[in-house]
Amino acid sequence: MIIDCHGHYTTAPAALGEYRDAQRAALDADPDHVGAKGTIAISDDEIRTSLEGAQLRLQRERGTDLTLFSPRASWMGHHLGNAHTSRFWTEHCNELIRRVCDLYPDNFAPVCQLPQSPGARIEPSVHELRRCVEGMGFVGANVNPDPSGGFWDGPPLGDRAWYPLYEALCELDVPAMIHVSAACNPQFHTTGSHYLGADTTAFMQLVTSDLLADFPELRIVIPHGGGAVPYHWGRFRGLAQDMGRPPLDELVLGNVWFDTCVYHQAGIDCLLAVIPADNVLFASEMVGAVRGIDPETGHHYDDTRRYVDAAALSDDDRTKIFEANARRVYPRLGAGGGSAP
Amino acid sequence: MIIDCHGHYTTAPAALGEYRDAQRAALDADPDHVGAKGTIAISDDEIRTSLEGAQLRLQRERGTDLTLFSPRASWMGHHLGNAHTSRFWTEHCNELIRRVCDLYPDNFAPVCQLPQSPGARIEPSVHELRRCVEGMGFVGANVNPDPSGGFWDGPPLGDRAWYPLYEALCELDVPAMIHVSAACNPQFHTTGSHYLGADTTAFMQLVTSDLLADFPELRIVIPHGGGAVPYHWGRFRGLAQDMGRPPLDELVLGNVWFDTCVYHQAGIDCLLAVIPADNVLFASEMVGAVRGIDPETGHHYDDTRRYVDAAALSDDDRTKIFEANARRVYPRLGAGGGSAP
Repeated sequence: MIIDCHGHYTTAPAALGEYRDAQRAALDADPDHVGAKGTIAISDDEIRTSLEGAQLRLQRERGTDLTLFSPRASWMGHHLGNAHTSRFWTEHCNELIRRVCDLYPDNFAPVCQLPQSPGARIEPSVHELRRCVEGMGFVGANVNPDPSGGFWDGPPLGDRAWYPLYEALCELDVPAMIHVSAACNPQFHTTGSHYLGADTTAFMQLVTSDLLADFPELRIVIPHGGGAVPYHWGRFRGLAQDMGRPPLDELVLGNVWFDTCVYHQAGIDCLLAVIPADNVLFASEMVGAVRGIDPETGHHYDDTRRYVDAAALSDDDRTKIFEANARRVYPRLGAGGGSAP
Repeated sequence: MIIDCHGHYTTAPAALGEYRDAQRAALDADPDHVGAKGTIAISDDEIRTSLEGAQLRLQRERGTDLTLFSPRASWMGHHLGNAHTSRFWTEHCNELIRRVCDLYPDNFAPVCQLPQSPGARIEPSVHELRRCVEGMGFVGANVNPDPSGGFWDGPPLGDRAWYPLYEALCELDVPAMIHVSAACNPQFHTTGSHYLGADTTAFMQLVTSDLLADFPELRIVIPHGGGAVPYHWGRFRGLAQDMGRPPLDELVLGNVWFDTCVYHQAGIDCLLAVIPADNVLFASEMVGAVRGIDPETGHHYDDTRRYVDAAALSDDDRTKIFEANARRVYPRLGAGGGSAP
């Protein structure tokens, strides 16, 4: 069985975007707009149509089984609006993910976004995490280390302001994937430099802070192959050493996993040469940042199963990466596949 | 011959730091402080002492010959003070580099920093570039894509505000190394996440803007192994393709070079597997971000020559990386080694 730990609902029916557009229009008129949560009319058939020709077809074609599925990352848009609108939007997005997983419990397991907002307290995010995990069977959460959308003006992950969220993640026994949303800063390209920069930034915050010592049970997934981290693993080992920190392996590998969203063979080979197989989770992020077919291979760039299949791995290590590690990191996954609430 | 294209004067005599401390104290009292350029009393013997036991010893031990030497990157501190104090500080730093190269013309060739300042016009930087190249024989310049020190609130590199600098770089036939300075934003660790994030960010700006089309002769060096770029080369190829841009190789490889400041064998192997040898420049950044000895190898992390020596390269490609490419990218290097004004 192959579990893909990183997929977003990038193909959601149009009514979801229309809800957000209306919310944004109201916010343009009044930045303090609250409004009401309201409803979004999406039928089960519309959900099926949105997935059958996309994620489900690609799962079948690529021979992957179960995707840990969360709302579209670039649409989380925590920098937009305020804590109230972020909450309503987040609740709808998460509830739609729950519906996807109810329709296709063998294909998808739910991961939530959080109602973060620049400068806002983390407690509403803790509340939504509990609602999703305890009330709706979610197995993990995406945590945005920069709700500003590329201005990086909030507290780093080691700051105590985040600690209530880590306490809840540990208590609920679900991991956090560190994942920013769209960049609204013209310096950054969302899926090119912002995602990868945020992955690297978050990792360095784990290295320099007391976070992992304070939460020894916390499990963190760094997506997109860990940003720049595995490629520069020697640099990070050396920096930790120069700072008098414990050896990097000891410091982070009990708590941190890297996914395989690296879209070429040489990159995957580097990841697997550097990071122990116990700390790698299979992922593709399809349908996601890169949708084209690589003319050098004739296959989709994000068909990462091909790279992992072709990598020099033992069968045991490949099984860990494809399935066993995900079951350890996401223990709320049902033993047989997806999860039911 | 081995040319190291990336070294900073991280061991400068104490008087340099004392000058900066005094300037910063005056700025603390008055953010609009201008002051005078003044003088910094450093003797030739002090310069010799600062280098003999450090960069020069390491050059000898590692068997490298010539270092393209610029002021300490983390001390550029463009976010500190104002355009006036940045100018005085920059002039002193560059003049000190000139003195180093006069004392050791076979070991060092000069690369300048620029008097950038948040929100300031680029013209004073053009002026200092001309002073350094035309008046003092410098062969390249470091350009900071984020003078704010980690708040990224200025124009991206594709913005027309930068164009006078690119015009001068082309006219003077010197390359720019993209290199941020210290982060003053607590979200970023200077040499861990800020440097690598900035490298990736700058590269993506080259991919998405018209800069390289507008300046086909411009030569850009992305340091620290290109940040996350080679590791994610498939992602960047796919993003360029999805955006309808030319193939990534065509788009950037006529103008962009990556250095070898990647501090472990697997990372260097990835770099060299992905990026053509014509676009790789040998570099170590010693004495720099990582100063320790890797217990796994018994050698300094930043002894990058060992990794390049051990890599699967043809002799021809190794010669390109060690010397020939640097002579193409930095044509103002004297044919015999360093440069004289």
